[in-house]
Amino acid sequence: MTFVQNYSELRNLPAASLREVIRSGRYTGHTAGLAPGHLQANIVILPEAFAVDFMRFCQRNAKACPLVGVSDRASPMMHTLGGDIDIRTDVPSYRIYRDGAAQEEVSDIREFWRDDLVAFALGCSFTFERALMAEGIRLQHIERNITVPMYRTSVATEPAGPFRGGVVVSMRPIKRSDVERVTAISARYPFAHGGPLHVGAPEAIGIAALERPDWGEACAIAEDEVPVFWACGVTPQNAVLNARADICITHQPGCMLITDVDESQEVPVYRPANA
Amino acid sequence: MTFVQNYSELRNLPAASLREVIRSGRYTGHTAGLAPGHLQANIVILPEAFAVDFMRFCQRNAKACPLVGVSDRASPMMHTLGGDIDIRTDVPSYRIYRDGAAQEEVSDIREFWRDDLVAFALGCSFTFERALMAEGIRLQHIERNITVPMYRTSVATEPAGPFRGGVVVSMRPIKRSDVERVTAISARYPFAHGGPLHVGAPEAIGIAALERPDWGEACAIAEDEVPVFWACGVTPQNAVLNARADICITHQPGCMLITDVDESQEVPVYRPANA
Repeated sequence: MTFVQNYSELRNLPAASLREVIRSGRYTGHTAGLAPGHLQANIVILPEAFAVDFMRFCQRNAKACPLVGVSDRASPMMHTLGGDIDIRTDVPSYRIYRDGAAQEEVSDIREFWRDDLVAFALGCSFTFERALMAEGIRLQHIERNITVPMYRTSVATEPAGPFRGGVVVSMRPIKRSDVERVTAISARYPFAHGGPLHVGAPEAIGIAALERPDWGEACAIAEDEVPVFWACGVTPQNAVLNARADICITHQPGCMLITDVDESQEVPVYRPANA
Repeated sequence: MTFVQNYSELRNLPAASLREVIRSGRYTGHTAGLAPGHLQANIVILPEAFAVDFMRFCQRNAKACPLVGVSDRASPMMHTLGGDIDIRTDVPSYRIYRDGAAQEEVSDIREFWRDDLVAFALGCSFTFERALMAEGIRLQHIERNITVPMYRTSVATEPAGPFRGGVVVSMRPIKRSDVERVTAISARYPFAHGGPLHVGAPEAIGIAALERPDWGEACAIAEDEVPVFWACGVTPQNAVLNARADICITHQPGCMLITDVDESQEVPVYRPANA
């Protein structure tokens, strides 16, 4: 009855139709490049007992964990992010953790939902990448159609309750002459990690070997380029493992929630056109 | 033993010394213009049972309620905002509300403190006002040494749990030819209300008479000026009244917490110099 849909068939669909396809289980893949202009979000779902500390953690580490949405008590609908978003079905694929250990990967979490769960949406790098490309900056991982390289660092997060751990960064090679402009453009998007965390020296932030990323694929640095590092949405997943909640659910890296919020909005809240 | 200190004597004190004076009860007045370059913050203190909903409210109304700090469980020390900040003593003057009604004004809340209270710090307009003045924009309320005029509006906040109510705005007359620049400058400070909420027509946001502000003093609009409205830190005080917590404590308008955080920081977290 259902069938897996190809990424290329999805490129021209509006956000609501994309979510319908995803909700039905027909697409479980990555969302880079889909629904241009719409805010996409990392997802972390936790029991409400952890919610205050997790929000403290997001506030203190806002470059890595820019909070763009929080579900209401006992509701799986994220009404501030879209007209019909059900967080139990509208992410392409999920990862279930129990007591801090990854357990399984699923495309629907209705059977895991409990009324004490709270869903948190965090902004992602797609937003500033789109802005960079619109201003003529070439991004190697996108041109090569690979996942951006990500690294653990020696930079500590500011802990909150049981949430702690190192900052995870993504790296993009940038022409030396473009670094200033790239910094200014990405800094315009505080809900999408903002400006770079570090430019130039991987060893200064505890990265031993650029050619061996912890996640994603390596990108070579050309003669006229420098490595530029941004705080990354994998940071909270790391912190969440350390918190050892009885249950925690996240999106699979790259498989984001597609929202109805315009990614250029100053405050990421969806308001229906007739409201 | 103690004596009330004059505002003018405080202008050259560093932040930590100012907090010492305030902590000792020797100064209970407004903090505009003190400790230039240091982030100042609105304060809301609530029982932890309200914390998740209040943080939801701040996320959804981030222009009015930009969260810059949250105290840890059962601790009155706001270590992410400074080296020695005790929220029970370090605000010049406080207002105590019980069941949604203002009860008393005090300069120290040690006798009201409970271990289930959580203190929230929200960014304030002093930050963008300083940036505007540094770029040559004149601000009438500062030149006249009066409190900025503030108004209730017909713009609704996005509710969260029991927190709801209209957005409160502050108004500054700005030369028509400067509006674009003023908008761009203030938009650089998302933790200080960001860009204007509205420019030009008070009636469009439900303000009937500019000459009768709900708080502060009126400012006349000259021929070559337009009224420019920013979301205001009084908004959460309004929402908090609607939530009718058994206890809620706020700063007195204008009497802010002076932090050790540099107001130009992208993420408002204090890190000691030797850390």
